[in-house]
Amino acid sequence: MSEQVKKVAVVGTGVIGNGWIARFLAHGYDVIATDPADGAEERMRKALDHAWSYVEELGLAEGASKERLTFEQNLSKAVADADFIQENVPEVEELKQKVLQDIDKYAPAEALIGSSTSGIMPSELQENLHHPERFVVAHPFHPVYILPLVEVVAGKYTTKENVDKARMFYEGLNMKALLVRHEIEGHIADRLIEAIWRESLHIVNEGIATTEEVDQAFTYGAGLRYAQYGPFLTFHLAGGEGGMRHMLKQFGPALKKPWTKLEAPELTDELYNRVVSGCEDQAGELSMSELDQNRNEFLVRLLDLVKDYWPEAQDKAKQ
Amino acid sequence: MSEQVKKVAVVGTGVIGNGWIARFLAHGYDVIATDPADGAEERMRKALDHAWSYVEELGLAEGASKERLTFEQNLSKAVADADFIQENVPEVEELKQKVLQDIDKYAPAEALIGSSTSGIMPSELQENLHHPERFVVAHPFHPVYILPLVEVVAGKYTTKENVDKARMFYEGLNMKALLVRHEIEGHIADRLIEAIWRESLHIVNEGIATTEEVDQAFTYGAGLRYAQYGPFLTFHLAGGEGGMRHMLKQFGPALKKPWTKLEAPELTDELYNRVVSGCEDQAGELSMSELDQNRNEFLVRLLDLVKDYWPEAQDKAKQ
Repeated sequence: MSEQVKKVAVVGTGVIGNGWIARFLAHGYDVIATDPADGAEERMRKALDHAWSYVEELGLAEGASKERLTFEQNLSKAVADADFIQENVPEVEELKQKVLQDIDKYAPAEALIGSSTSGIMPSELQENLHHPERFVVAHPFHPVYILPLVEVVAGKYTTKENVDKARMFYEGLNMKALLVRHEIEGHIADRLIEAIWRESLHIVNEGIATTEEVDQAFTYGAGLRYAQYGPFLTFHLAGGEGGMRHMLKQFGPALKKPWTKLEAPELTDELYNRVVSGCEDQAGELSMSELDQNRNEFLVRLLDLVKDYWPEAQDKAKQ
Repeated sequence: MSEQVKKVAVVGTGVIGNGWIARFLAHGYDVIATDPADGAEERMRKALDHAWSYVEELGLAEGASKERLTFEQNLSKAVADADFIQENVPEVEELKQKVLQDIDKYAPAEALIGSSTSGIMPSELQENLHHPERFVVAHPFHPVYILPLVEVVAGKYTTKENVDKARMFYEGLNMKALLVRHEIEGHIADRLIEAIWRESLHIVNEGIATTEEVDQAFTYGAGLRYAQYGPFLTFHLAGGEGGMRHMLKQFGPALKKPWTKLEAPELTDELYNRVVSGCEDQAGELSMSELDQNRNEFLVRLLDLVKDYWPEAQDKAKQ
């Protein structure tokens, strides 16, 4: 738990906002939430009840309690004495800018502001703030109270000190606070998710497969691997002893093939070297065979775990 | 185990071929392998030793034994009395066609042939065979002896009876034999993998992030979810009570944004309906809240499992 932050305000209590509330409470913070929608408080409390057994299982901080949550319809009051404000209003740039200006106006000048935006760049969101230096994008993943990733992106007015403070705050929530060093639409994670999503839509749109077939084609193969290693390390390992060097030799030419609607970049020597040395750096002290053994051990255990949780198994169990 | 298949021939003993060998042996088949490369037999036996402890942990069929593997340098002899032949030579179309013609020539006329090709369409591979009706694409995922998915694709000359036989054979290997109903480059799974891969390469190519940062951005968030649910069901759930309908309302406009280099299809009423009804069909008897609970329970257990297997943890454990 961060020493400087005692009270967190959550602005916008949809799926993501409610997910943050559960995570903040579980880590021992006082939380004050605000949302102008009818019935927002009731939905928020219901979502929290639903989430609580899972955050309990993951482990509560000392003093953590569901009772430390208040709802305040009025945004200006909600943020008035918060040390950290997490904004989660719908993904509409004008709306986000308006709400962020209100937060900026009513919150203490030194309070940090994190926006959960999926794809908007921080410099755009902070440009009309009086204190833009305390603003970061902090993009989490659903369900926020379970998944560890938060992408932290600074805008051009954000100070380094505040980025560091924000990252420490999120790390204190037992999260992986990944610093995204350059602003880009969709940050990093959503670009990858969006690429899968759009390719999937094309496949369904062209009548090649149903949504269920697409899901199965992903889940029962690559999806299992991605819980442990990302796209680069996965290909590094698929190359056998030769690693990424071998993969790029064998599948480099496939980058020119119409295997997806997405056109690949030219595999220049520079890109080749960057990818190969990147994978070798990532492997760190671990040899190929150690990475491979770890992958196998993990997958054997994962299969044993996941087999009862796949939709087919769940559906069958219910019948 | 299939009743009609006793002996399996494996042609090409690279990473994929060797993976198949371990899976076939573990399920109680006699296996004969062939590969013209120097040292292939030694590498194959080493790979099998490495794989064996994992297939043992997954469970061996009665009579399954590593001793039931023979290596035969000569392809014509290797396939001469096989009931099923799995081809895994490098992903070069001319080479695959040449090898498949040899298999077709020397194998019994009724033996089934499956090709592990990642992306080539079956009609192209079977067109010069004397018995094209017994040919299917059967595309597995690395490591083949652990991951359950195999995409089964018929070409235009493949008989329905043989597709069914092939699927039953693979299902007997404890695999998820997904019938890909239309031929398309990259089948289904590799199109999704390739979309992630190309987007990842763009990000590294443009200097936005390192390979490690891309991997982390994927693994610690979306990657965990994809072990259980595919891209469609994941978004269906992220929509909360409104499911995919809500998601498409909220994120449909984002399809026009430059969140990936991949251009999305137009979200027509027809596509909207297909995606929404597809997700609802997939959910089957399960309510949104049951799907959601299953997802949460799984993720909490997965986090507990995977935390020691992530590269950072492994690297730290070694130091």
